[in-house]
Amino acid sequence: MKRVAVFTSGGDAPGMNACIRAVVRGAVYHGLEVFGIRRGYSGMINGDIFQMSSHSVSNIVQRGGTILKSARSKEFMTPEGRAKAYDQLKKFDIEGLVAIGGNGTFTGATLFFDEYGIPTVGAPGTIDNDLYGTDHTIGFDTAVNTALEAIDKIRDTADSHDRIFFIEVMGRDSGYIAIQSGIAGGAEMVMVPEVLTPISEVIETLKSGWSRQKSSSIVVIAEGEEAGNATEIAEKIRAQIQSDIDMRVTTLGHIQRGGIPTAYDRILASRLGLGALEGLMNGEQNVMAGIINNELVYTPFRDTIRLPKPISEDLLRMVKILSV
Amino acid sequence: MKRVAVFTSGGDAPGMNACIRAVVRGAVYHGLEVFGIRRGYSGMINGDIFQMSSHSVSNIVQRGGTILKSARSKEFMTPEGRAKAYDQLKKFDIEGLVAIGGNGTFTGATLFFDEYGIPTVGAPGTIDNDLYGTDHTIGFDTAVNTALEAIDKIRDTADSHDRIFFIEVMGRDSGYIAIQSGIAGGAEMVMVPEVLTPISEVIETLKSGWSRQKSSSIVVIAEGEEAGNATEIAEKIRAQIQSDIDMRVTTLGHIQRGGIPTAYDRILASRLGLGALEGLMNGEQNVMAGIINNELVYTPFRDTIRLPKPISEDLLRMVKILSV
Amino acid sequence: MKRVAVFTSGGDAPGMNACIRAVVRGAVYHGLEVFGIRRGYSGMINGDIFQMSSHSVSNIVQRGGTILKSARSKEFMTPEGRAKAYDQLKKFDIEGLVAIGGNGTFTGATLFFDEYGIPTVGAPGTIDNDLYGTDHTIGFDTAVNTALEAIDKIRDTADSHDRIFFIEVMGRDSGYIAIQSGIAGGAEMVMVPEVLTPISEVIETLKSGWSRQKSSSIVVIAEGEEAGNATEIAEKIRAQIQSDIDMRVTTLGHIQRGGIPTAYDRILASRLGLGALEGLMNGEQNVMAGIINNELVYTPFRDTIRLPKPISEDLLRMVKILSV
Amino acid sequence: MKRVAVFTSGGDAPGMNACIRAVVRGAVYHGLEVFGIRRGYSGMINGDIFQMSSHSVSNIVQRGGTILKSARSKEFMTPEGRAKAYDQLKKFDIEGLVAIGGNGTFTGATLFFDEYGIPTVGAPGTIDNDLYGTDHTIGFDTAVNTALEAIDKIRDTADSHDRIFFIEVMGRDSGYIAIQSGIAGGAEMVMVPEVLTPISEVIETLKSGWSRQKSSSIVVIAEGEEAGNATEIAEKIRAQIQSDIDMRVTTLGHIQRGGIPTAYDRILASRLGLGALEGLMNGEQNVMAGIINNELVYTPFRDTIRLPKPISEDLLRMVKILSV
Repeated sequence: MKRVAVFTSGGDAPGMNACIRAVVRGAVYHGLEVFGIRRGYSGMINGDIFQMSSHSVSNIVQRGGTILKSARSKEFMTPEGRAKAYDQLKKFDIEGLVAIGGNGTFTGATLFFDEYGIPTVGAPGTIDNDLYGTDHTIGFDTAVNTALEAIDKIRDTADSHDRIFFIEVMGRDSGYIAIQSGIAGGAEMVMVPEVLTPISEVIETLKSGWSRQKSSSIVVIAEGEEAGNATEIAEKIRAQIQSDIDMRVTTLGHIQRGGIPTAYDRILASRLGLGALEGLMNGEQNVMAGIINNELVYTPFRDTIRLPKPISEDLLRMVKILSV
Repeated sequence: MKRVAVFTSGGDAPGMNACIRAVVRGAVYHGLEVFGIRRGYSGMINGDIFQMSSHSVSNIVQRGGTILKSARSKEFMTPEGRAKAYDQLKKFDIEGLVAIGGNGTFTGATLFFDEYGIPTVGAPGTIDNDLYGTDHTIGFDTAVNTALEAIDKIRDTADSHDRIFFIEVMGRDSGYIAIQSGIAGGAEMVMVPEVLTPISEVIETLKSGWSRQKSSSIVVIAEGEEAGNATEIAEKIRAQIQSDIDMRVTTLGHIQRGGIPTAYDRILASRLGLGALEGLMNGEQNVMAGIINNELVYTPFRDTIRLPKPISEDLLRMVKILSV
Repeated sequence: MKRVAVFTSGGDAPGMNACIRAVVRGAVYHGLEVFGIRRGYSGMINGDIFQMSSHSVSNIVQRGGTILKSARSKEFMTPEGRAKAYDQLKKFDIEGLVAIGGNGTFTGATLFFDEYGIPTVGAPGTIDNDLYGTDHTIGFDTAVNTALEAIDKIRDTADSHDRIFFIEVMGRDSGYIAIQSGIAGGAEMVMVPEVLTPISEVIETLKSGWSRQKSSSIVVIAEGEEAGNATEIAEKIRAQIQSDIDMRVTTLGHIQRGGIPTAYDRILASRLGLGALEGLMNGEQNVMAGIINNELVYTPFRDTIRLPKPISEDLLRMVKILSV
Repeated sequence: MKRVAVFTSGGDAPGMNACIRAVVRGAVYHGLEVFGIRRGYSGMINGDIFQMSSHSVSNIVQRGGTILKSARSKEFMTPEGRAKAYDQLKKFDIEGLVAIGGNGTFTGATLFFDEYGIPTVGAPGTIDNDLYGTDHTIGFDTAVNTALEAIDKIRDTADSHDRIFFIEVMGRDSGYIAIQSGIAGGAEMVMVPEVLTPISEVIETLKSGWSRQKSSSIVVIAEGEEAGNATEIAEKIRAQIQSDIDMRVTTLGHIQRGGIPTAYDRILASRLGLGALEGLMNGEQNVMAGIINNELVYTPFRDTIRLPKPISEDLLRMVKILSV
């Protein structure tokens, strides 16, 4: 393999730039030519492709977002779109791809390989940490710390006013951000999509806190929670407890996707970027590079797409104990 | 004057603890006895009053929120409530008050003085910076920096995805947080309650940016904006431009009230706390301590309550120029 | 076991408070009585011991340092000192100890057990990450991120002035902080005590960077580096390259020990605090609770004290590749 | 005036990029052509000059350092150097300059104007805040907050170990960073070059604190302090008090120059950049734009160079009161 390309796709995540840098510097180190593709599959189709050098990735390791930009491409989901993409890659003689993204990205790569035989190795880039095949995804640690900083700020206010705060964090299908930021933030309760939490249990926990003179409480809710979003849950609780206690709701929103990546995310992203590139050089195809128990592993896309990633029972138990 | 008390009232703001500390340490320095009242007027009514020493305020200068807690008290707005409060203060022989809060707090203090002759000097504590009689209020600089950090994070994502972001910041009657965080955050447009901004002007600015290949844009909106909240404004714009451009809305919410105070807020709070105390000792009554042009000034509560605080024309002009 | 005590000893580390909280809340949850000992073995000798409740650890999860304070005690290293300590523990009927600290702390605990049979379970609290028996110690992730923030700031200046910066980070016997902050900070070179790095190799790397038009470079040096401290190394290099290139040295120092703990450290500290307590309840003695490959494990003190913790070859290799 | 150029010179300061952006965007807004000069006078001599557009300054408002780089140039201090610089400016038809820097920069600009008649308007860019003619310089607020964050971290450790910390901050001729970070950080004592502080007074303050059971203390020292650097002062004190109290010294160093600029610095830099440009357009020459009492003012370079900037008596008094 002599020429590879790298792109980012799907939602952006802090650390993607550190990952791009590792792919590019790794390629230079190993004597390959390396190209960047802008805006994911959309740029592949439109030929928004350019050669990169060691310099192209100077001074980006600390930046949030992605210098290659990201976009979702409906066109790539059609055979015509993929045909165009293939034509563009041919022009540049690109023989292999490193895709930084999530399952949507990997599904596209699988289709593309079946039709055109161009191999892709993936690196898991998503703040949600919902990918099977790696302990953590790129951007997760930063997102948790961003959510945590917000919780720390809100606790100042909760304590000053004896309030209950319902804080909604990201995680459409996954409670990872909620559980980690909740434990670290000293939340009384965490609600995640993986576990059914009856409203009555939340009420009981809050009441038990009041009986022990807890004057303020924080409930962290993942956006994918079945019982509803934070506002709906707060309404249900207010209706049932019929107290005039001061309840507030806040949704952290898009700040969780951005920001300067933490050390953990930069190192993880560097390892995975290099791991993906070296996997590609060694003949891996249609697999995602991941770190499990501190070892680099490659998991087939069909598994990362198909298999669920369970949430830690240990952490769920800990929330209960730590809020006594 | 031999015995004074300090309390915080209304919404909490970062720097209130530094202000409490300055009142307490100042009192100790000047040989007064000093008391803390918990939960504002509510604690005054209930006698939640305790003596403070230099030690009571150790290691709080850096903390958000208020160690004296804050609450709104409907009871103090009644003659009966104020009578109870007076009885409590009598018990402790308290002769003067330092009130850290906003206009609601100062209105209560004015009524109380008219009835019972206990003088109050105020210190302006509110993140909104909407008080006449001081260039800046305690908590404003921290709130602006918190909003700015959020805007910086969101710009990572906006740039990575070529999006328009509408970001709603706090400021019910005042565009101060919006204008300062907007300029500092490189926003294309800022919408504030003090100035009428037709939707057509926003659209024009955004279109003009696109014509110059700006791929992402940020519009900062104060919550008190007449044209509606951020979601409503985004909807109106989407309806009119009929483009499929990716628009997102985010409301920063309660994180703006909390957090570790900035150096500016800690120093301002220290000056105002000490200034309020020393004013009280020198016979000032029913005035708010403020800093205007770096000088300590006292403004009667009736003026801080009555007079509007205009927003800087200079800054409004600057938004336009800097977004070309 | 009905009564346990917790203390912190040795250098303080961010996350110690989260660990104390987990021990205390865990004890309350399991129906034990729990005591705090101030200033480590010194307070044990002096009887600075007090009962703790769930409330005692409210609102501390986010604070740096240790509310139980820490100290080094020469007296505890004598039989007389330990006899006094035993008498004090007897007074309170304390049957087991959770010690948060490093190898010095664990050595003391081992002697104490041999003489008086009071079992201790340890939790690894030190920013250096130099303890065998756990992937990471409490405080390490925060220290790395603190060092990284400093490196990010210094790179602003290095880039603006085309300078070489030599940055000394903590780690007397261990290069963990150096290697992690160096990779994450995009350093051209990292010097650690575990690996001999000839000065000539540093010079070669720097020169090779210049030949590729790198205008600024960063070298991260662990304080325990054999070739000398950062100032000495910079001097040697300056003497040999005889260039007028602008070189600066900075030693990060004590800021690395403090600060608000990261999410990672708070969760790790909570798991280890709870793990140590539950180990003690289940009959473990003279072992350290650690997390290896995401599993809770107990390692005998004699091993944590005796066995070295090797640095990752993978990471050392990555520095080279990423700085091409 | 149709063509102007902007450059940064002397030590870099956070906010310089926001200032460059305001100059460039302001020039575009007013229909001027605008050029950037790299590495200050050195680049002027070497013709490292390039045209800038609105795009050139996209996404830099939040970055530390200076995208135009900075350097000190001995050659510009010679007539030959300035002759070369003039030739280069002629090539590009540049009629006026905006110089972002300090007194060294302004001295050069004055010589240059006397010889070649090319007018310069300055913007004060230095973290030290030691320039007459403006309340604050660009970078000062960020540097104070950086020093403050460090002090907050160190206090965690000081409190945990009952230590005295001597912290040296930047400020060769000026105690501004020391006094502001000291007050905000709750220091017991601040030593600045503007005021003689006998060692005996420091000792007295520390002893008085101990007598009131203060277990930890922080002394902030400006690097220009006459009594010596932090290490020397600590040694003198240790020699005189003959106590075994634990004393530590830390020098914050270069981290104070870098970092993401605060809101205050970005707004100040924007106002001053725009003010300098518009001054130049209106015929100002050899003056520095400054903000005094929130108004834009222009001060002749001869005054900014000649006149001292006194430190606030108010703040010095406050340190004493707040540390009782």
